[in-house]
Amino acid sequence: MAKSRYYGRDFITTADWDKADLDRILRLAREMREKRYEEPFTSLLKYRSFFMFFFNPSVRTRQSFEAAATELGGHAQYLEPKSMRLKTKKSAGETVEDAAKVMSRYAVGLGIRILEGAIERYGDGDALLLEYARWADIPVLNMADDKFHPFQGLADIMAIEDHLEELRGKTVLLTWAHGALARSWCSVQEHLLIAAKYGLNIRLAYPKGYDLDPQVIETVKKYTAENRAEFEITHDPVKSYEGVHIVYSRNWMSPQAYEGGVFNKEKEIEKALTYKDWITTAEKMKRTDNAYFVHPMPVDRGHEVEDEVASGPRSLIYEIAENRLHVQKAAMALLMSDLWREEDLEKRGLL
Amino acid sequence: MAKSRYYGRDFITTADWDKADLDRILRLAREMREKRYEEPFTSLLKYRSFFMFFFNPSVRTRQSFEAAATELGGHAQYLEPKSMRLKTKKSAGETVEDAAKVMSRYAVGLGIRILEGAIERYGDGDALLLEYARWADIPVLNMADDKFHPFQGLADIMAIEDHLEELRGKTVLLTWAHGALARSWCSVQEHLLIAAKYGLNIRLAYPKGYDLDPQVIETVKKYTAENRAEFEITHDPVKSYEGVHIVYSRNWMSPQAYEGGVFNKEKEIEKALTYKDWITTAEKMKRTDNAYFVHPMPVDRGHEVEDEVASGPRSLIYEIAENRLHVQKAAMALLMSDLWREEDLEKRGLL
Amino acid sequence: MAKSRYYGRDFITTADWDKADLDRILRLAREMREKRYEEPFTSLLKYRSFFMFFFNPSVRTRQSFEAAATELGGHAQYLEPKSMRLKTKKSAGETVEDAAKVMSRYAVGLGIRILEGAIERYGDGDALLLEYARWADIPVLNMADDKFHPFQGLADIMAIEDHLEELRGKTVLLTWAHGALARSWCSVQEHLLIAAKYGLNIRLAYPKGYDLDPQVIETVKKYTAENRAEFEITHDPVKSYEGVHIVYSRNWMSPQAYEGGVFNKEKEIEKALTYKDWITTAEKMKRTDNAYFVHPMPVDRGHEVEDEVASGPRSLIYEIAENRLHVQKAAMALLMSDLWREEDLEKRGLL
Repeated sequence: MAKSRYYGRDFITTADWDKADLDRILRLAREMREKRYEEPFTSLLKYRSFFMFFFNPSVRTRQSFEAAATELGGHAQYLEPKSMRLKTKKSAGETVEDAAKVMSRYAVGLGIRILEGAIERYGDGDALLLEYARWADIPVLNMADDKFHPFQGLADIMAIEDHLEELRGKTVLLTWAHGALARSWCSVQEHLLIAAKYGLNIRLAYPKGYDLDPQVIETVKKYTAENRAEFEITHDPVKSYEGVHIVYSRNWMSPQAYEGGVFNKEKEIEKALTYKDWITTAEKMKRTDNAYFVHPMPVDRGHEVEDEVASGPRSLIYEIAENRLHVQKAAMALLMSDLWREEDLEKRGLL
Repeated sequence: MAKSRYYGRDFITTADWDKADLDRILRLAREMREKRYEEPFTSLLKYRSFFMFFFNPSVRTRQSFEAAATELGGHAQYLEPKSMRLKTKKSAGETVEDAAKVMSRYAVGLGIRILEGAIERYGDGDALLLEYARWADIPVLNMADDKFHPFQGLADIMAIEDHLEELRGKTVLLTWAHGALARSWCSVQEHLLIAAKYGLNIRLAYPKGYDLDPQVIETVKKYTAENRAEFEITHDPVKSYEGVHIVYSRNWMSPQAYEGGVFNKEKEIEKALTYKDWITTAEKMKRTDNAYFVHPMPVDRGHEVEDEVASGPRSLIYEIAENRLHVQKAAMALLMSDLWREEDLEKRGLL
Repeated sequence: MAKSRYYGRDFITTADWDKADLDRILRLAREMREKRYEEPFTSLLKYRSFFMFFFNPSVRTRQSFEAAATELGGHAQYLEPKSMRLKTKKSAGETVEDAAKVMSRYAVGLGIRILEGAIERYGDGDALLLEYARWADIPVLNMADDKFHPFQGLADIMAIEDHLEELRGKTVLLTWAHGALARSWCSVQEHLLIAAKYGLNIRLAYPKGYDLDPQVIETVKKYTAENRAEFEITHDPVKSYEGVHIVYSRNWMSPQAYEGGVFNKEKEIEKALTYKDWITTAEKMKRTDNAYFVHPMPVDRGHEVEDEVASGPRSLIYEIAENRLHVQKAAMALLMSDLWREEDLEKRGLL
C-alpha cells in the first residue's frame, strides 16, 4: 500500500501548498471538530512522539499542539532549546545536523517556534526552520517563526469560510494597531497570504514606516491578481474600515526592530504607543459591512481593540483559537501518521 | 441521557460541598485505589487534556495530578504562567477572560496553584482562582491557593476514616510548629474545615500571634456546633496533646507575613525558629490516646516533628500522600469526564 | 503467578548485572526495534507514570526516555529538582527518604540524571542515586550520573554487536579528545566496563593527567582478564589507532575538575583545548582495521572528531543514539512492568 501523498511533508507556510491541499486539510479539520475524541482520529499517532521546540514561550501554540498530539493518541514533548546544549555562534554544542538526525529516530514530527527575542534579525528564525527541515527525516512544522505562522492562517480562513458564504468579492481589512508587545510579522503575513490565496480582496492599513516584508507583499499581490481580487495599501486608521467584511487588527514591529543585530523591543513599544488612533473601536466598526472581528490572540485589549469589539457578538477570536487545534490535528495526521494510506484518504474524500 | 450532577462543577474548597457529595468522592476514591489501573477508570479522560497552572512549584501536587490524568487515560499539561505572557498589574498581556475562554476550548479542566511568593497579600491567590472560575467554561480545580487546599483535606480525612472506626467523639489536635519554610495557611485551614464537617472535635494550638483566617475559624466553629462537637483554641505546646486521637503538626506563617505588600519570607522564618518548644516529639505523643500522626508534607523534620514520630508506626504521612492521587482521580472523573452519565453514577452507588 | 525476576530491580551500572541478563535486555531491545509500535510492548506501562529527575539538562536522554515511556503506553513526567524544594546542605526541605517514599506511591519507576555542575565532587551524583534506591520501593534507573551511564553503554554494545560478527579478538580504542564542553566520565567508564565484559580488547588513550576512576579501571582489567582479552593504556594520540576495530573518541574532564569543591568548568575547557593533536581525523582512521566510529553524542565536531569521520559511512553515532530508545524500553519493560510474569518472559526466551 502506498503511503499517502502528504506523509512526510514539511509545513513552513501555506504559500508552499496548493489551495486544493489546504482545502482538504480544512475539510479534515472540520470533520475532526465534529468528532473530537472519536476513532479513527484518536489512533493516528498512537504511542508516537511529537517534539515541540520552543525557542520562545507561547500560550495557545503550546496548549493546542500538545492537546492535538494527545487527541490523536500520541504525546508531545515540550522541549526548551536553552536546556539542550545546542551549538550557537557563541558556544560549542550540538549541530543542527546531529540534533535533527537523532530526533528523527525518536519522533514522528518536529514543531519549532522561533521569533522575536530569540533571533538577531528578520529571517533568521525561518532560516533555522529550513535548516532543520533540511536535515530531519521527519516533517518539520512551523509553530510560528519570524516570517510565517501557517496554522494561524489556516485557523483564520477556516472561521472566515464558516461565516461568510462566499469569499470572492468580500474584503478583509488587515490593520496595524498600536500596542505594548511589539509583535512579529508572522501572523499578519500568513493571514495576507492565505486570504489572498482564498480570493478575498485585501486592504492593508498601517502608519507610514510599518511596511511588512516586500517579498511577502509581492506574493500576496500575485495571488490577488490571479483571483481577480483587489489589493490596496492605505495609511488611514479610520476610512480604511469602509465597507469591509472582516476586520483583522494587530500590532506589529517596524522594519527597524532588529537594527544593530538585537531585538529593540522597548524602543519599538515606545514608538508604537504614540499612534493612539490606531485601535479598532466600536465606532469604526460601524463603517464596515457588519464585519466580523478577527485576531490571532493574545489580544492587547485597550491598545489593539476595544473590549466592546473583542468580546462582542461579531468577534471570532475564540472560535479561531479553537480552530488552531483542529487544523493542527488535521495537518499532523496527514503529515505524520504512517497509519493512513492513499486508499484511506480516498475513502475520506481527501484526494 | 443527562450529564451527571457533578459534571462541570468547580472545586475551590471542601466548604463549598455537601458532606454527602464529599462522601461519594471518597467512596469512589477508595474504589479507584483498589482498582488502580482498571477499566472503566482508565478511560474516563481518554484523549482529553487537563491544564495545570503552577504559579508556584510543587512536588506532590504536580506529581499526583499529572499521574491522576495519566491513570484516567488523559494527559496533564504542565504550564508555568511566567512563560504565558499573562497580563499583570505591571505588564501588558492576556486577560484572565481571554486565557480562560481559550483554554476552555482545548481542555476539560483547569488546575491552579497560587500561594506564598506568587501573591502580594492573603486572599489574592484564591481571588485569582475565582476569577478563572468566573470566565472558564470548564471546571477549575484548586491545587492549593493561599486559603484552601481541598484535595489535601480530602486525603487527610480519607486516611483518618480508614484508621478511626468512628469520628464522632474523637479529637484532632492541629498544632502550629516551628520551621524553616514559612508555610501557607491552606492545608491547615482546609483540614480544620473538613475535620469539623466530619464531626471531629477540634483542638487548635499555636503561639499567640499566629491566628489563622477569622472567617475560616468562624465556619469551623459553625460546623463543630452543628455536629455537637467541641472546638477549642490553646497556646500550650505540650498540654494540648492530652488525650487526642490525631496529631496534625505544621508550621504556618503569621498574619504579618504580607505586611508591606510583599511576602516577608525570611523574617517569618526567623521569627518562627525562635519557638523551639513547638515541635511534635515522641515524648509529647505519649500524652495522646495513641494518636496517629498527620502531616500534608513536605515535612520539615527536626522542626515540625521528630524523625521517630514522622517515620514511626502511627505516622500516616505516606498514606495521605498516596490518597492525594486517589481523591484527585475521583474528583477529576466526576467533574471533568463527559463519559459518565447520571445512570452510571447511580449504578456505582454515587447518587 | 510469580513476578518476573527483573521486576523491581534498580539499574545503576551494567557492572551490577550478569552478562546473561544484559544479553536478554539486548535481545528484547532488538525485538522492540523491529516491532516499534506493536503489542504487547505498547501496553506494558499503560496508564503508569515514570518519573524523570533531571538535576542536569539533557537532549537525547530526556527525549529517548520520554519517548520510551510513551511507546510502552505509559507517561514520563519531566521533573526538575530545582523546583522541588528538596533538602540540601544549605536549605531546609524534603529528605530523600520522604521524596522517594512518596514517589513510590505515584510512579512505577524513577530515572535520575545528576552530574557535572550539579555536584560538588566526583562520586556525589552516584551516591545520591544509591540514596534514592535505598528508600524507593520502585526501581531507580540511572539516566547518567558522574560515574556511570548504563543505557549509553548498552546502546554502544548493541551497535557494536550488530556490526562486528564476533567481539572476541577485536579491539576498541577509547581515546580522550580535546573539546569545549568538559565532559563527565560516565559514558566512557560505562563503555569500558561493558566492552570489557563483552570480551573486547581495550586500548585506552589519553594525555598524561587525564586518568579515569582507578576503581573502574580495576574492574575493567578484571573483566578483560576473565575474558583473556587485552587491556592497555597509551598516551600517544596517533599510534593508538593502529589496527583497532572500533574508535570511540570523547572529551572528558581531568581528576582536578572538582578541586575546591566546585566544578571548574572554564578551567577544564581551557586546559583541554591546548591538546590540539587529540582529535579523531580521517587520516588517523586509516591506521585502523577499517574501524567503526562510536560516540555517545552530543558530538563536539572539530574538537573531538572531524566531520568527515562523524558523518562518514563507518560512523555509528545515529544508530547508537536510536539504540538508547530501544535498550531503555527493554529495561523499563523488564524492571517496571507488573504485567509481565516469569511465564511471559519464558515464552519470549528471556530466561
